[in-house]
Amino acid sequence: MKICVLPGDGIGPEIMAEAVRVLEALELGFEMEEALIGGGAVDATGTPYPEATSRLAKAADAVLLGAVGGPKWDTLPREQRPERGLLAIRKELGLFANLRPAILYPELANASSLKPEVVAGLDILIVRELTGDIYFGQPRGVEERGGERYGFNTMHYTESEIRRIGRVAFEAARKRGKRLCSVDKMNVLETTQLWRDVMTELAPEYPDVELSHMLVDNAAMQLVRAPKQFDVMVTGNMFGDILSDEASMLTGSIGMLPSASLDENNKGLYEPSHGSAPDIAGKGVANPLATILSVAMMLRYTFGREEAALRVEGAVKKVLAQGYRTGDIFEPGTSRVGTRQMGDAVLAAL
Amino acid sequence: MKICVLPGDGIGPEIMAEAVRVLEALELGFEMEEALIGGGAVDATGTPYPEATSRLAKAADAVLLGAVGGPKWDTLPREQRPERGLLAIRKELGLFANLRPAILYPELANASSLKPEVVAGLDILIVRELTGDIYFGQPRGVEERGGERYGFNTMHYTESEIRRIGRVAFEAARKRGKRLCSVDKMNVLETTQLWRDVMTELAPEYPDVELSHMLVDNAAMQLVRAPKQFDVMVTGNMFGDILSDEASMLTGSIGMLPSASLDENNKGLYEPSHGSAPDIAGKGVANPLATILSVAMMLRYTFGREEAALRVEGAVKKVLAQGYRTGDIFEPGTSRVGTRQMGDAVLAAL
Ligand SMILES: CC(C)[C@H](C(=O)O)[C@@H](O)C(=O)O
Ligand SMILES: CC(C)[C@H](C(=O)O)[C@@H](O)C(=O)O
Repeated sequence: MKICVLPGDGIGPEIMAEAVRVLEALELGFEMEEALIGGGAVDATGTPYPEATSRLAKAADAVLLGAVGGPKWDTLPREQRPERGLLAIRKELGLFANLRPAILYPELANASSLKPEVVAGLDILIVRELTGDIYFGQPRGVEERGGERYGFNTMHYTESEIRRIGRVAFEAARKRGKRLCSVDKMNVLETTQLWRDVMTELAPEYPDVELSHMLVDNAAMQLVRAPKQFDVMVTGNMFGDILSDEASMLTGSIGMLPSASLDENNKGLYEPSHGSAPDIAGKGVANPLATILSVAMMLRYTFGREEAALRVEGAVKKVLAQGYRTGDIFEPGTSRVGTRQMGDAVLAAL
Repeated sequence: MKICVLPGDGIGPEIMAEAVRVLEALELGFEMEEALIGGGAVDATGTPYPEATSRLAKAADAVLLGAVGGPKWDTLPREQRPERGLLAIRKELGLFANLRPAILYPELANASSLKPEVVAGLDILIVRELTGDIYFGQPRGVEERGGERYGFNTMHYTESEIRRIGRVAFEAARKRGKRLCSVDKMNVLETTQLWRDVMTELAPEYPDVELSHMLVDNAAMQLVRAPKQFDVMVTGNMFGDILSDEASMLTGSIGMLPSASLDENNKGLYEPSHGSAPDIAGKGVANPLATILSVAMMLRYTFGREEAALRVEGAVKKVLAQGYRTGDIFEPGTSRVGTRQMGDAVLAAL
């Protein structure tokens, strides 16, 4: 059982160190090997997803990623930007199913910018398609046409791409609240009319799951108005990028949210939902819990170790109950700790 | 000075009746003529944007629209759906600049699902490009390819399309808080890299306006986290559809929000930001204030009657201060009124 560990940029190395300690403490016999991705990889090798990393990631059963990117690399040519590393590894490993929970821990209810009654107990799972859509569509580019620059991109989906992400979402809903909301813009985009059609065709195979459809503009509103109406949401890569970030922020504690990106065989890449936070990098204050919770997702989805996953999640709940808080989730009356101390607390709770 | 009045579907006719009364009470000598659009037009003529409506809209100086759509027409073939009428009139009249204010009236602060301190005093203007992008891009469709259905759409912008909406946004920012945030997804989409480049090129012409850029996923988060950081936001048609609805809902009172869609010469279409609300149609309970405030925008942008616009806006503020509330914004301690009575109150306040 091999795990490819990619700490990445910014706070990546700090939060990853704690996640790795948690993994080691579980003594499940994983083999871990580290490699470069993102800005650090560009600095060292000239490319954000080096050949050596690709080889390691392909050979591993799961990939654990910190975060990529930072201002230092923002002005590089497109192909060398850190986030190209992320897009490349998703595509190369066929990680089409991105699972992003938006959960509000009771202890952190105040962190949300929404009223407590609107978000208390929030528990949404967003299933985002991750290897298709306008992200990877051809043709694309910027050209000279009629004497001026012209930019173009292509949104597209095949019915089999929609069906396989649909199945992941229906299965997930089946294990949770049994309600699935599929998000599209079928009144304008033919691609998403096909999306709606295929989701509708799948529904009879999951009679225990209640399927509904919502337009993306309405979904963006409903997430703000009454987010608890949702159980599982499924949508394409582009809309999923926007809605999953919106949903995360409803919790006010994005430092707590893990994510999983899976292929057809449950091989997966696991990473926190937050970014590389260059402003606090190297200071030892970043919240490692989203990365630690990503380890839990990895144990569950790739390795089928539900018990170990629950143990990690339980330890995180315990440290919250004990009042430990990193700066991002600190409030008066709790104990402010750094990245390392938070890792210590989780290890103790394990 | 001719106004084409399009009541449309659902609550459209009810709210429009009040807006028309307000216009008449101002005695500014407007000529008004009514026509069909949306579902009602489909029922009467077989098409959501009939030739007669198009002729009238083209001949008018401004168009006032209620709302279109409803479940009755949802299963019609694509070309007959009510919203095609909306897309057709935007495109035909060249209404490329959609201005959507998201304002939280102090009296309605409680209506928001966000904490009062996060949204009190909110006043954002979203400038959305309305005649380009993936909404109108060719090629598009659903085809059979390799034995399965394949859906595709094209996102595109030319630099001149970006420049003209950019100018509208910079000008608007100049008249307000002098801060403009341009939203794109330049790290993935070439079209929006061009968007960012053109906005950046425009900036030196507006040295008094501070331009910033934000990725769309981050913008969706920041609107939830700290919406008051924004003054004017500018973005493309697709992202604008999503973000402007999200921003409206931050106020919790979408029944209060007008919108304007302008062409190069400030000819415009004005409509409330909310939809046709079929569930309450015909009951006389809909909130007419967004439509009445759309009249104010029309007076300001198309007819240059700033004073009359302020008079209408002042009257709306007054009825709120007097405690009049339709059902959507009602709370204990205020007076619940119907559509007609709300219109009466505004007329009295004028
Ligand atoms: C960094 C970027 C390419 C990426 C995306 O848009 O998918 C990120 O926003 C995400 O959601 O993981
Ligand atoms: C009805 C629909 C076509 C329209 C759009 O997507 O532009 C609506 O959502 C809007 O924002 O005015």
